[in-house]
Parts: sequence; C-alpha cells; structure tokens
Amino acid sequence: MTQTFFGQINPPARLLMGPGPVNAHPRVLRAMAADMLGQFDPEMTAYMNQTMDLYRQVFMTGNRWTFLVDGTARAGIEAALVSLVEPGMKLLIVRAGRFGLLLSEIAERIGAEIVTLDIPWGEIATLEQIEDAIVTHRPHVLACIHGDTSTTIAQPLDGVGALCRKYDVLSYVDTTATLGGMEVATDRWGVDVVSGGLQKCMGGPPGSAPITISDRAAEHIFARRHVEAGIRGADTHDGTRARIPSNYFDLAMVMDYWSEKRLNHHTEATTMLYGAREAARVVLEEGLQARFARHARASRAVCAGLRAIGLELFGGDEYRMTNVTGVYIPRGVDGEKVRGRMREDFEIEIGSAFGPLQGRIWRIGAMGYNAEKHKVLLTIGALETVLRHEGHAFAAGSGVDAALAAYNA
Amino acid sequence: MTQTFFGQINPPARLLMGPGPVNAHPRVLRAMAADMLGQFDPEMTAYMNQTMDLYRQVFMTGNRWTFLVDGTARAGIEAALVSLVEPGMKLLIVRAGRFGLLLSEIAERIGAEIVTLDIPWGEIATLEQIEDAIVTHRPHVLACIHGDTSTTIAQPLDGVGALCRKYDVLSYVDTTATLGGMEVATDRWGVDVVSGGLQKCMGGPPGSAPITISDRAAEHIFARRHVEAGIRGADTHDGTRARIPSNYFDLAMVMDYWSEKRLNHHTEATTMLYGAREAARVVLEEGLQARFARHARASRAVCAGLRAIGLELFGGDEYRMTNVTGVYIPRGVDGEKVRGRMREDFEIEIGSAFGPLQGRIWRIGAMGYNAEKHKVLLTIGALETVLRHEGHAFAAGSGVDAALAAYNA
Repeated sequence: MTQTFFGQINPPARLLMGPGPVNAHPRVLRAMAADMLGQFDPEMTAYMNQTMDLYRQVFMTGNRWTFLVDGTARAGIEAALVSLVEPGMKLLIVRAGRFGLLLSEIAERIGAEIVTLDIPWGEIATLEQIEDAIVTHRPHVLACIHGDTSTTIAQPLDGVGALCRKYDVLSYVDTTATLGGMEVATDRWGVDVVSGGLQKCMGGPPGSAPITISDRAAEHIFARRHVEAGIRGADTHDGTRARIPSNYFDLAMVMDYWSEKRLNHHTEATTMLYGAREAARVVLEEGLQARFARHARASRAVCAGLRAIGLELFGGDEYRMTNVTGVYIPRGVDGEKVRGRMREDFEIEIGSAFGPLQGRIWRIGAMGYNAEKHKVLLTIGALETVLRHEGHAFAAGSGVDAALAAYNA
Repeated sequence: MTQTFFGQINPPARLLMGPGPVNAHPRVLRAMAADMLGQFDPEMTAYMNQTMDLYRQVFMTGNRWTFLVDGTARAGIEAALVSLVEPGMKLLIVRAGRFGLLLSEIAERIGAEIVTLDIPWGEIATLEQIEDAIVTHRPHVLACIHGDTSTTIAQPLDGVGALCRKYDVLSYVDTTATLGGMEVATDRWGVDVVSGGLQKCMGGPPGSAPITISDRAAEHIFARRHVEAGIRGADTHDGTRARIPSNYFDLAMVMDYWSEKRLNHHTEATTMLYGAREAARVVLEEGLQARFARHARASRAVCAGLRAIGLELFGGDEYRMTNVTGVYIPRGVDGEKVRGRMREDFEIEIGSAFGPLQGRIWRIGAMGYNAEKHKVLLTIGALETVLRHEGHAFAAGSGVDAALAAYNA
C-alpha cells in the first residue's frame, strides 16, 4: 500500500454566502478544541444540562425535552419522524420545496401513510389550506418546513399548533435553515417537535441537530419504548404503539440519556456538544431579537443590491426568508461560470439551486456569522464585477451603493 | 425566560483511562478549528477523497468504498446493518459481550431473522463454532464485534471472511474499540463491511464513524437503491431487494455522495471530517505496526502493574484487548468510591462495567493518545495510593515499578 499522508488541513478562506453551510463563528470553533470528558463525568453531564437550558432559550420554549441529536440537521429530521410516526400512521406533509419532499422520502421509508398539501415552489400554505387538509385527511401527525432554502421562502406558522391541537394532530417543524436567524417561536406556534441545525443561522459547523419536544409528544414517544422486541411494521398498528425502528434515532432512549436517569445510549459527540453549546451562547449574548433584526437588515441589503444591478428576485417579498435570497440568473448568463469566477477570483461562494429552479436561480445567503454589512457589500460588489465582465452593463458600484443604503436605512 | 449564558467551555484536564472516549490528540482538535467549506467546493471534495485514501490505509484494505458516516460509532454500526440486512433476512450474530447484544437490538428493529452464537463473557468464538453456526443456520449475513470493551476481549477474525465466502454469507465487523490500536486487517480477514469510531484508539473525538465496504457488499447495497417507494417490510422479502428503511443511513445514497457523482445527500459534517482526516494522519505517520506495538506495550505495563498490587485480571491473556484491561474490584472495596477518588484527587478517569460484570470489575484503558508510558505509570500509581488509603496494604510503588519494568521490557 502506498503511504500517503497529505498535508495538514488548510482550507482556503472562502466567504460562504450560499444557502449553507456558512462560515462558523470563530468562538464556536475554538470551543470545540477543548479536550474530551467521559460521557458520565459530572462535568460532562453539567454541560449537557446547560446545553438543554440554552436551547430552550434558542427555541423559545419551556419544553423540558430540549437536547441534541448526534448527526447533521437531517439526523434531527429523521430522529423526529421515526420517533413520532409509526408505520401505518397518517402523516400530512406540507410540501412547498425540496425539503418538503425530503420529509415524504423519509416518511415513506418509515411506512407511514402519507398525504400531502402541495404548494407551488415560491408560495406558502395558508392556515385555511392547512385546516382544509387536516379536515379532509384527519392525519395523526403534520410535518412541515419552516424555511426551505430550495425556495428561499418561509412558511408562517402562527396558528398552526392551535389548529393541530384542535384536531388532535401531533406536529413537527424543521427549522434547520432558520434557527438562530428568524424567529422560531416553538411555544407561541404551539407545535410539538421542532428540530434545527448549527450550520446556517446558528453560526456553527454541521454535525449536531438541536431538537425540542413537547410533553405530549414525549409521552407518545416514551409509550413506544416498551413495545416488545421483534414487533414492528404496519401490521402491528392496531392502536398499540409500534417499536421505533431505529436504535440510534430512538428519541425515547436518547431522552433517557439526557435525563437524570443517565441511561447509557451512544457516547455523546463531545466536541459537537461543545460547539452547539458555544453557538447558542453566541446567539443568546447577541440577543434573539437583535439577531433577527441583523438578519433582516442584511437581507434587505442583499435584495436592494441585487435589484440595483438589474436582477429579478425569486418569490414575493412578504414571505421571503431573511437569511437566503433567490435571484434569477439573467438570460444569456452561464450561472455556473459566474459561481466559478466568484469563487476563484473573490473566494466567495454563492449557491446554485435544485429541482425546478436548477439553472434558473442563484441563492445568496447572509446568515449567522455572515449576516454582516461588509460581507454583503463584498458579495454584491463581486457579483457586479463578474456580471460586468460577462458583458452586462451596469453603473459600477450601483449594487454596492444600494445595498449599503438599505443596510443603513 | 431567564437569560443564562453560562461560562465559556473549560473542562477539567481529566486523564481519561477508561474504555473510551479518551483524550483526543491535540493535533486532531486543532485541525477541527479550520473554517468551513461548501459541501461541493472542490477543496472540500478533495479533502473527502484524501480521507477515503487515508482510511483505506487505516482499515488495511483496497476497498474503493471507504468513507465516513456522520454520527458516532453507533451510527456506523446502524448504517452498516440497516443497509446490509433486509427485513426477513437471516442474520447470525456472534455475541460475547454487551456490543454483541447491541447488534441484536438494532437488527430486531430492522426486522431481521436473528440467530445467535452466544459465548460466555470473557471468552471468544472459535472458527469451528462459527462454521457450525453457519452450517446450522445458513444465514445471509454474519455480524460480530472485534474488540468488545464490555469484556475487554478481542475476537480473532483471521479465517472468518473465507468461511463466510465459502457459505455465501455477507460479513460485518464492528471495530469501534480497536481501530488504530489493534490490527484491523480488513482484506486479510476477508470480511465485507467494517466500521469504527474515532474516540478510542484513533485519538479523536466521538462523532464520526469510518466505514469500509467490499465491492460485493456495495453491489448488494446499491441493488436496494432502486426499490420503489412505499415497498418495505418482511412481507416483501421474496428474492427482490427491500428498500433501505432509513434515509440518513442509506449507504447507497451516502456512497453516491462520496463518489464522483457527488449526488447531494445530507451536508457532510465538515469539522468532524477534518478531525477524522487528521486522526488518520496522526495514526499513519506513527505507522500502524509501531502503533499496535505501543498499545501492546502499554497493555503489558497495565497488566503487570495491576498484578503487582495484588489485583486479579478478568479474562485470559491470550485474547485480551491491548487497549483496555478488565480487573476485579477487590472484595470489600467500593468500586465507585475508588473511581470517585481517582477522579477527584488525581483527575484520572477509570471505567466501571456493565451487565454481568457491573460492580465486579473496573476497566482501565490505555489507548490512542493515552497509550503512553507516563500515563500508565500515573494511573497505576494513583490507583495504588487510593487502594492503600482504602486499607489495602501493598508496598508503596510496587505497581508502578512493575508497570515500568513491563513497559521497558
């Protein structure tokens, strides 16, 4: 075997202004350099308890069951669905983008009976549409995405929890793309389970999924713990609880580990916990409202800058996410070539798109540590330059001027 | 809501001499402080390819499919089993400790037909026993643990792959506790899928699970990719392939992301990848054989030191893991009190035990960054002191002297 060790890690200093992951806050990365603790060390369990407390504040909830799933944001989504939704249970999914489709894809594998409320990409579901769908289908669980980066549109969620409780529906919301940047008001929304990630507005690296669970959802999940070994599948869904089909994502077991019981499950991902804890500290020290306002200001600056250089935004302003903006690639421009020049000449990454929007829009993010005035101005200025070099005639600096004015407005 | 931010992360400098996690190599933690890259950035995909190459060397294999699962070591185990084993498939599990039981627990949830070869804790399965079990049960898949920290015994695996191929059985081995510290000879063993972790002999933090997959196993896994949505469960096992019941752990999709296709799956856990890459670099720069020899020396020193202070080791010497040692708690001694004094007076963690060994043995690890002469001597010396204070009369320093002599022998 050839012995090749490669060099030490030394990534280029990219400014990540796409849909995520984005640059992590340096404090988060430094916190992750702290050394290991044993998983039952009293200092470690104290850090776990503090992390629960910090994420209650981030999720704006009093939920006791607020902790971390060890994996990327998608691990949090799968853990939530696999623990909530039993084979044969009816799941209503609000689908208005790529991550709505992901919920379906995961739920299919669980063996759920899936019904959907399909919304055109770029639009939102109204409360009336959601109530109609609930009344029509009478699901056991409703699942939706808060901010879907594929469309850059955020689904309003006020009132959704009350609707679900009215019809005795458990609810799940994915906030991977919004947690720490837009308001995630778990208790005011009244939803049962909310999961997120670190690598977007939280300003951390991907690899840990904060989650919060209401008491009634936790009760449902714990009731699945005692199902006997070997019993599973749609055919057992006769009113009794079916066993959670995953060990790693069995949130009943994970909650037992995060509780005073400290029952052994998998070893907690120590370093990611340190990072998640520090990310929450950075977020809360700034203050949630101040942070949401900073994201909104950065978003206004991005939108104004893009419009000033003659580009058209995707989706309406009313429900636009304040951390990522979709913008149409001008006719005749090679979107991937522009992204390549942005990266190679300016060390700035902007995003491409998926599905029906692939090749049609770019996605420009300004989130977490990167929702900063100078980073927005540098990005708009670089894009302006690249587009001018591609033959698009704008008054040089017009985008940057407009972005600066909007940021300061 | 009360605003509480807690202090910055500042764990005590514990010397972790238990069964893991242990202290990470400082180079690994420093590498993890490097900033983010986009998941399709050419620099990021280059790091992914380098990581594949490095882990081929660590796993001693030419397997193309050698990569990371984003989660702790248990995520690697579940990803391997859920991707290999279909509902209704017959799985033979060699169970000689707690982690063998974990394999059963995961497989039950998959809906596998489980047959077992049960071995008393502290012993190993012989090749004859394994062949008999294969001939009796004719399983589709065999699964076993290489080093089970619950018993501190390592299962010999030479010849197991050839047996499995003779009877057309796919094979899986968990090497969480041995990878990077004892020989994990994937290709010489001839086994199909091997997974590990970082937090034991690899000298990294928990949170990433390296895995390697033979071409024939990958073919089996890829064949499950095209199964139509909605088809799953034991009732579909009619010779066609059943869909993998997890999205996050669908190794066909994960392999598509790690291949030249770069099909989008979940965002790679960037920071953990940096850490896994650096851990492998540290291991390979030392050299696998030198590293195994260092672990063996440290293990001899631990054993000699414990025996010199009159303690009895658990299990025979022949199959003892060279990175963790089980030792009987002397009659009349409160094992947890001793562990507490080790931690509080000396900042040294040693391990308790599970299942039938709970309260009967301690487990003393010397692995990865901690398989060092001075750390073994400090641990033996501290244990000697604590035991003397608990009324056990030894010639002070006899354990340390014996450990030092054995290390240098």
